[in-house]
Amino acid sequence: MKLYDTPRAPNPRRVRWVMAEKGIEDIEIETLNLMEGQHRTPEYMAKTGLAQVPVLELDDGTCISESLAICRYLEGRYPEPNLFGRTPEETAVIEMWTRRAELMVAMPFMLGVRHSHPALAALEKQDAAVGAWNLEAATRALKVFDRRLADSAWIAADRLTIADVVAFISYDFARGMLKYDVPAEMTHVARWIADMKARPAAAVAR
Amino acid sequence: MKLYDTPRAPNPRRVRWVMAEKGIEDIEIETLNLMEGQHRTPEYMAKTGLAQVPVLELDDGTCISESLAICRYLEGRYPEPNLFGRTPEETAVIEMWTRRAELMVAMPFMLGVRHSHPALAALEKQDAAVGAWNLEAATRALKVFDRRLADSAWIAADRLTIADVVAFISYDFARGMLKYDVPAEMTHVARWIADMKARPAAAVAR
Repeated sequence: MKLYDTPRAPNPRRVRWVMAEKGIEDIEIETLNLMEGQHRTPEYMAKTGLAQVPVLELDDGTCISESLAICRYLEGRYPEPNLFGRTPEETAVIEMWTRRAELMVAMPFMLGVRHSHPALAALEKQDAAVGAWNLEAATRALKVFDRRLADSAWIAADRLTIADVVAFISYDFARGMLKYDVPAEMTHVARWIADMKARPAAAVAR
Repeated sequence: MKLYDTPRAPNPRRVRWVMAEKGIEDIEIETLNLMEGQHRTPEYMAKTGLAQVPVLELDDGTCISESLAICRYLEGRYPEPNLFGRTPEETAVIEMWTRRAELMVAMPFMLGVRHSHPALAALEKQDAAVGAWNLEAATRALKVFDRRLADSAWIAADRLTIADVVAFISYDFARGMLKYDVPAEMTHVARWIADMKARPAAAVAR
């Protein structure tokens, strides 16, 4: 297997974080330079039809894009530590929280950054109203996670799961790009951010 | 098991569509009236912490929101016909296309409708710029699906999968709410829309 990766972008980072949690070291990694358009060559785009990173190329030539599809596939190949659930019920609860993290937090943070950060003006027809609306939406959604994290050490189960990885990386992307900070009253989110930063994977998967 | 449902909204419709494809008839359905706020009562919100529909209440009391988490759980309980993949590789390809349908098509269509339709002004601080940007984004994304559907009868596999259900229902929601139509040049999407409308599930899961 081979992973097409790029530094700093949040979606590839999810895959590298999962690999670090699982101690996966036998997947070849090819790092693409997006600013040089290495994800827009005809050869690369033929893999999945879109200029997306990450892509996991399987040994049979099948190419998978979309970070969570890749992470779930890796869970099948490298089952421990479990990040997606052990029973159908636990799997469903983890998917519920992962989708909340994706749709309510990660997607608006990503759009907020893309419509607000001067360095990304070349990638997107930026609209300040779209950027501001999305950052407000992400902040509202974090309140839901703050309530959850008041009762639970981790977002979706009694241990770190893929839901934590998705939520943390999107927050950390907004923090790095826009100096975004969570409102001071979200003390449970702040505690969880500290726990995520302290994981060995945080240092490996930057 | 018990499903908390509501008519017309696209996310609950996904679950009903999957139930129709699988011939599931032994799940109790309780229909909520969102305009009367039946999803905002303390009893209902205690189930998953948010005023979301659908919710699947399991026999052990566990409550699952998020339509795709519910659909994947139902696949485990009612495996045929398979909608999420039979092998890890097929599962990954289907999840890749389902996420593209969700993030590139369904999410922008939903936000486009919520920020554009007068009847929804009470639910959302509407912003016309956000609405227009999202409808344009969904239309751009449908071009990717048009290319795919030129080569494949269905979006993600050699049969209908959850990716088709997610993409079609989001398009049909925008069509019903905003009279949205796909651009005439997307002939492959148009053929696939006709195929989706012809399925028995389309008549059952409205």
